[in-house]
Amino acid sequence: MTTIQDLHTPALLVDRAALQRNLATMTAALPGARLRPHVKAHKCTALAAMQAAAGHRSFTCATVREVEGMASAGLGDDLLLANEVLDMQRLGKVAANGARVTAAVDSDETVRAAAAGGVGEVVIDVNVGLPRCGCSPDEAGRLADLARSLGLEVRGVMGYEGHVMLLPDVDERRKQTEECMSKLLAAHADVGGDIVSAGGTGTYAVNSWANEIQAGSYALMDTAYGAVADLPFEQALFVLGTVISRTPPTDGIPGWAVVDVGLKSLGMDHGNPDIPAGTVWFCSDEHVTWQPDEFDSVQLGDRVRVVPAHVDPTIALHERMWLVDGDEIVDELPVDLRGW
Amino acid sequence: MTTIQDLHTPALLVDRAALQRNLATMTAALPGARLRPHVKAHKCTALAAMQAAAGHRSFTCATVREVEGMASAGLGDDLLLANEVLDMQRLGKVAANGARVTAAVDSDETVRAAAAGGVGEVVIDVNVGLPRCGCSPDEAGRLADLARSLGLEVRGVMGYEGHVMLLPDVDERRKQTEECMSKLLAAHADVGGDIVSAGGTGTYAVNSWANEIQAGSYALMDTAYGAVADLPFEQALFVLGTVISRTPPTDGIPGWAVVDVGLKSLGMDHGNPDIPAGTVWFCSDEHVTWQPDEFDSVQLGDRVRVVPAHVDPTIALHERMWLVDGDEIVDELPVDLRGW
Repeated sequence: MTTIQDLHTPALLVDRAALQRNLATMTAALPGARLRPHVKAHKCTALAAMQAAAGHRSFTCATVREVEGMASAGLGDDLLLANEVLDMQRLGKVAANGARVTAAVDSDETVRAAAAGGVGEVVIDVNVGLPRCGCSPDEAGRLADLARSLGLEVRGVMGYEGHVMLLPDVDERRKQTEECMSKLLAAHADVGGDIVSAGGTGTYAVNSWANEIQAGSYALMDTAYGAVADLPFEQALFVLGTVISRTPPTDGIPGWAVVDVGLKSLGMDHGNPDIPAGTVWFCSDEHVTWQPDEFDSVQLGDRVRVVPAHVDPTIALHERMWLVDGDEIVDELPVDLRGW
Repeated sequence: MTTIQDLHTPALLVDRAALQRNLATMTAALPGARLRPHVKAHKCTALAAMQAAAGHRSFTCATVREVEGMASAGLGDDLLLANEVLDMQRLGKVAANGARVTAAVDSDETVRAAAAGGVGEVVIDVNVGLPRCGCSPDEAGRLADLARSLGLEVRGVMGYEGHVMLLPDVDERRKQTEECMSKLLAAHADVGGDIVSAGGTGTYAVNSWANEIQAGSYALMDTAYGAVADLPFEQALFVLGTVISRTPPTDGIPGWAVVDVGLKSLGMDHGNPDIPAGTVWFCSDEHVTWQPDEFDSVQLGDRVRVVPAHVDPTIALHERMWLVDGDEIVDELPVDLRGW
């Protein structure tokens, strides 16, 4: 039996039971095409295959590389690149090889690029309140007309209420989601098509206006989403580290320990990770310095499960995840959608 | 001629002229073995080879993988793993294959691990004020005795005044460095050996107590070190992006643009990156949303050089860097020391 004791650290662990419960909970809420899982969260075709086996055969991607990798893995039934690209040649090649590829567009230039690149299907990306990509709602109809005039199939609209995802109060989150979606539905009335795509892990249960939800983080979770009390998903992702140094308490300074997990194995944009039964002081390139609640309970060589604050950029730093049942390693999940 | 227009984005660029000036400035200040370049900053054996060609043949590493990769690249004359490891078997194998490998130790356990793993040489890692790894100065002599009793060669001491690196006032930085180094020199008096290793890009010019400096960031730089006014190094690293979306000003809201560089191509622990002639609003997985000083000067498809806040974790997210002379690509530099 191979266990986590056999791993070099840092190493990404995925708790199989928690993952399976998260997948089942989401599939029960949003079966089949009601969920369009976002692969940017895990960048892993093996994990996407589990989502497909649960009935979700349409996927959301954030990069061209993710689209290419999903198609190569036989998961190309319906791939939405929910992001703008001006060089659509690579996407067009994936479509020419038999995958269904739909690109988000929000400008004349991206519409023309889709047509020129051989990407036959688009959705109009609408700004619903997050200042990022997306056209103004009242521009959406004109862009759809332009797209159709160039021979493109316009499948509908998308918009991302990203600024709403982590609002702690569920009623406030629902209310702001409704405001965002009213903009998206207004655009959809002008655009037409079957798709109204939006949402994420934070709004999957309150966004009843979109007809498909682009959630990704729900499968593995992080401390940012974990702090949203109404979400039913469990932490399934951990960065395994080894305690490499410890300094006992002296002169009123509490004792601290150091684990070999750092900035280069953790997404840091949401802040420091958590370590159970301890307080994190700070992170360095290859270290977390933390104060254990009970210093004497932590020994050199101990394995520690560090809980990342943001799942997506954490996984992007690793070559693979290890699927575990308790401490036993049951599978290797290559993070095969990295890069661009 | 291949230029940056031919690259898929995001992509890491290294300005060759700025890199060469940075390398020359540091070599003039700390020639030969006075500098032990830290490869954790760039994780690139091709760049380390440039440092070796400038006369620095001893290197600092932060991970076992970095030691292995440097030895494989023929740069194994004198590799210091300036970090604690309990499983020294892989390091011992590198040493058995002919590279000179020295490990930092700060506890009985790491000393015993070095002896058991076949790592014949160590330095005693001393806590000089940054609460991380390193033994108490008054423990250093005892650890050196233990190491020698187990047949290890004790080459000296190291300590990292990391908390001092970014102090803006050079006199204060020198004063605090002196306080840190007084602890290291006290430990050295008990330990013996030739090496007193410390320092970094922030203290290379003020740390006159250590006899070798472990600087890494100086070669490529970032906005955090760039804010330290007395440092003579130039920004040489950029993340090239493409403008994929822009929203004109309306109703008193300024216009903004989006470039396809995000959390997954930028180290975020030091905060947002900079974009020249603009103000960064926020970063998403694959986007920076920013407000150009002159909105009309930014067009869809424009290439933008985003300046990272922290060099080390930025590079760790990329497979390669492109060495450029202006906009011309003159070489590819694989980031071949990633992972663990």
